Amino acid sequence: MSTTLLEALTNLLGERVSTAAAVLDQHGKDESHHTPAPPDIVVFPESSEEVAAIVRLCADARTPVIPFGAGTSLEGGIGALQGGVCLDMTGMNRIIQVNADDLDVTVEAGVTRKQLNADLRDTGLFFPIDPGADATIGGMTSTRASGTNAVRYGTMRENVLNVKAVLADGRIIQTGGRARKSAAGYDLTRMFVGAEGTLGVITEVTVRLFGVPEAISAAVCSFPSVENAVRCCMLTIQSGVPVARVELLDATQMRACIQYSNLDCEPVPTLFFEFHGSQANVEEQANTIQDIASEFGGGDFQWTGQTEDRNKLWQARHDALYAALALKPGAKAWSTDVCLPISRLADCIEETRFDIAASSLLATMVGHVGDGNFHVIFLLDPERPQDFVEAQRINDRMVSRAIAMEGTCTGEHGVGIGKRHCLEQEFGDALDIMRDLKRTLDPLNVMNPGKIFAQVP
Amino acid sequence: MSTTLLEALTNLLGERVSTAAAVLDQHGKDESHHTPAPPDIVVFPESSEEVAAIVRLCADARTPVIPFGAGTSLEGGIGALQGGVCLDMTGMNRIIQVNADDLDVTVEAGVTRKQLNADLRDTGLFFPIDPGADATIGGMTSTRASGTNAVRYGTMRENVLNVKAVLADGRIIQTGGRARKSAAGYDLTRMFVGAEGTLGVITEVTVRLFGVPEAISAAVCSFPSVENAVRCCMLTIQSGVPVARVELLDATQMRACIQYSNLDCEPVPTLFFEFHGSQANVEEQANTIQDIASEFGGGDFQWTGQTEDRNKLWQARHDALYAALALKPGAKAWSTDVCLPISRLADCIEETRFDIAASSLLATMVGHVGDGNFHVIFLLDPERPQDFVEAQRINDRMVSRAIAMEGTCTGEHGVGIGKRHCLEQEFGDALDIMRDLKRTLDPLNVMNPGKIFAQVP
Repeated sequence: MSTTLLEALTNLLGERVSTAAAVLDQHGKDESHHTPAPPDIVVFPESSEEVAAIVRLCADARTPVIPFGAGTSLEGGIGALQGGVCLDMTGMNRIIQVNADDLDVTVEAGVTRKQLNADLRDTGLFFPIDPGADATIGGMTSTRASGTNAVRYGTMRENVLNVKAVLADGRIIQTGGRARKSAAGYDLTRMFVGAEGTLGVITEVTVRLFGVPEAISAAVCSFPSVENAVRCCMLTIQSGVPVARVELLDATQMRACIQYSNLDCEPVPTLFFEFHGSQANVEEQANTIQDIASEFGGGDFQWTGQTEDRNKLWQARHDALYAALALKPGAKAWSTDVCLPISRLADCIEETRFDIAASSLLATMVGHVGDGNFHVIFLLDPERPQDFVEAQRINDRMVSRAIAMEGTCTGEHGVGIGKRHCLEQEFGDALDIMRDLKRTLDPLNVMNPGKIFAQVP
Repeated sequence: MSTTLLEALTNLLGERVSTAAAVLDQHGKDESHHTPAPPDIVVFPESSEEVAAIVRLCADARTPVIPFGAGTSLEGGIGALQGGVCLDMTGMNRIIQVNADDLDVTVEAGVTRKQLNADLRDTGLFFPIDPGADATIGGMTSTRASGTNAVRYGTMRENVLNVKAVLADGRIIQTGGRARKSAAGYDLTRMFVGAEGTLGVITEVTVRLFGVPEAISAAVCSFPSVENAVRCCMLTIQSGVPVARVELLDATQMRACIQYSNLDCEPVPTLFFEFHGSQANVEEQANTIQDIASEFGGGDFQWTGQTEDRNKLWQARHDALYAALALKPGAKAWSTDVCLPISRLADCIEETRFDIAASSLLATMVGHVGDGNFHVIFLLDPERPQDFVEAQRINDRMVSRAIAMEGTCTGEHGVGIGKRHCLEQEFGDALDIMRDLKRTLDPLNVMNPGKIFAQVP
C-alpha cells in the first residue's frame, strides 16, 4: 500500500480515512466462517462523486476497491483478499426520494432495510425484501438478496428499478429510470444486481415498494417429518396460493429457536406461514393451506394474529443463526444455501440430511422453501480443522446435487469466495462470458478482486 | 454475398436454404412502418447445433446473422440492413419439457405463445405474457416483450428462467437453470432478454407458468375523458388491487374497434379490465375497482363473464392495430410506445394528445396503462412523405417527454432501428457500457448489426 494513495485519500476526505487496526479488523470480517481479510485503509465516502474520486485514485494506484455495507454477507464478500481500500458506505444513508404514487423510492446505498421501512411507516407502503439481517440496500442489491418474503414479492432482481454506480474508471452511470418496465437496450440494472461489487460500486438504488396489506396473519404448523413439511409447501406453491412467507425449520433448528426465543412450540419439523391480503382473502388463503397441511399430517395451525406475536415469531426465525449457535457454545457457524426446482426440493433436502446424519457434525436446516431455497447451518468447533473439512465436503455434495437437479449453488447468499469453485459446474462455457464481462468493465481487476472468480485470466 | 457461404450453407442444410425472392422479401419486413430490408439468404435451422454451425460459417464470412421469429416486431428488429443470412427459427418449434410441478416449461425459440398455451391446455397452467401478436417465445425474449397481462404477471424480464443461446463464435451456452432464484454470478439470462439478437441467437427458453385462475372476469367501463380514465387506473395500481389487465383505448380507437370488431360500446375513452383469482377474490377486486371508477366519472361496468364474450373483447383489443388501419383504408400504421412512472402518465398522455390534435395526422392511443405504458398508432398516407416527418416529430417529442419524466423510450416494442437515436438521451454514459458489451460478445459485429446501435464504434 503506497503512502501516496493514503495521502491522496486523506487530502480528499480529511478525517474520513482510517488505518486504525480496530477499524481495519472490523471491515475485514462478515458473518461468515471465512477467514477475515482486513483492508489496508477504510474510507467513509458521503457522495457518488467522492466514491468516483476514490475509485480513480485506487485505479491509478492499481489498488483493490472493496465496498462494505452492514458487513452481514455470508460468503466472504467483503474480505480484502489482496489488501486495498474498503469503502464503508454507511455514511451514504440518505433516503433521497419517496415516490409514494409510483410505489418506488430512491435511496443511497448505505440505507438499511429497517431504516427504510421505519422511514416509510407513515406512507402505508413497505419494502418487502427481508434477508433477516439488517443489511444495506446497496449490499442487498450487490448480492441479489431475497429472504422470507421473496415467494410473494420477488427478490432484489425483480425489485430494483435503477442503479447509480461508479465504474472502475470513475465514471458515474445510471442504469435505468423509474418506469416499471422498459425494452430499451441491454439490462444494465440486472447486470449490477448480484455483481457483488466486482463491476462497480453501487451508490444509489431505486426499488419498488408495496402497499402494507389490509390484513396480515401468521401461523405455525408442525409436521411428522421434514419431507411431509416440504411436500405441503410444494403443493401450496403448485396450487397458486399467493402465500407471503413459508419457512421450514427442521427439528434441531426448532429446538434451538424454542430455547433461544422462548417459543411455545414443539421441537419437530415446522412451517411458519404468513398471509397478506384483504381480511377475506387472508382467511381464504389460510383455509386452503390448512386443508393442504392436513393432507401431509400437519398439526393444528397456531395463529398469531397480533402484530406483537407475529413480530416475535419472525424475529425468532431471523435469529435462527444465533439460536443455532447457542446450541453449541463456542461453535463457529457456517451457513450455506442452495436453490432448486421445487419438485426436487424434498429429494435434495432428504439426501443432504442423510449426509449430515452420517457425519460427526451438528447442523440445522432452515429454508425459504416456497422458492425451493434452503440453508444448512453447520456448527463447527473452531479448534477442530477436520470439522471444516467435513462441512466443506457435505456442502460441495449438496451444491453438486442441487446443480444436477437443475438448481443453483446459491439462492441468495451469493458467490463471494465460498462458492467460486461451484460456478464451473453450474455454468460451463457461460462462465467464460462472465469473465469477459468482468474484464470489459474492470480491465485492471481493481473492483472487489477475487470475488465470484478466483482469477480472471 | 459470397457464393462460398451459400454453398457451405447448402451443404449443411440441403433444401432448408432459400434465395427465392418471395422468401427473402417475406423475411425482410415486420409489422412496422420501417422500410423492408430483405436478407441475401434465408435458412431454416432445426437445432441449436445447426444454428451454431450457421453462425460459425457467417462469422468466417463476416456476414450478418439475423434471427427471425414470427416477423411481428414493431421497430424494424428483423431487417437485414447490411444484407446477410436470416435464420428463420419457426422450424425449431418443439415444446421440450413441461414441468407442471415446477410451473415452468422449456421450449425451442420458434414456439409461439398461442402454440404453447394450446399445448398447456390440459395441465391447468398457462403462459401469461401476451403482446397481442402470436409472437415466438424467442422473439418475445429478444425484445423483452410484455403486453396486457404484465401488470399482474410481469414481463419476459421476470418470467424467463434460462436461455440457451448461440454466441457470435458458435459456442452454445445456457445462462441459468430452473431454480426460481439464484445469487450465482452475473445475470446472463437478463443480458439476453431484450438484446434483440445482437449478442447471440436464442435457441431455447425456459419460462415460468401460472395456474389458470379459478375465476376470470372482464369488464368494460367508459369515462368522460382520457385523463379521468388514466387517473382511475393510477388509483387502481396505487391501491394495490392485483388487477390482471387494465387497458386504455381512447375515443378514436374505440370508434375503430366498435366498427372493426362489432363491439356494443360507446366511442368514448374506455378501460378494459380483467380480474383473476378465486370467485370471492375476483368479486372483491371488481367491487373495489367499481368504487374507484365511479370517483372518476366512470360509467357502469359492462361485464363479460362468459369465456366466449371475454375472448371477443380481448380479440378486439388485440386487433386494435387492424381496426385503426380500417379507419383509413390504404394507410400505413406507425405504432410507437413509451413507458413512465404512473404518476406522470396522465400528463404525458395529455401533452402527446395535444401534439396530435395540433397536427394534421390521424392517430389512436391505446395503453397498458397499469404499467405506465402507452402506444400511439399513427395512420399515415404512404404517398405523403410529410406525414412520416410529422409522425417522427411527434414521436420524438413524446419520447423526450417520457424520458424527462424518468420513463423510457420504449416499454415493450424494443429499440430495433426506430428508437436507436433515443438511447443517448435515456442512458447517457451507460450507453457506452452497452456498446462495450456488444463489442465483447460480438467483436466482428455480425449479430443482427445495426439494431439497438446504429454503429458500434
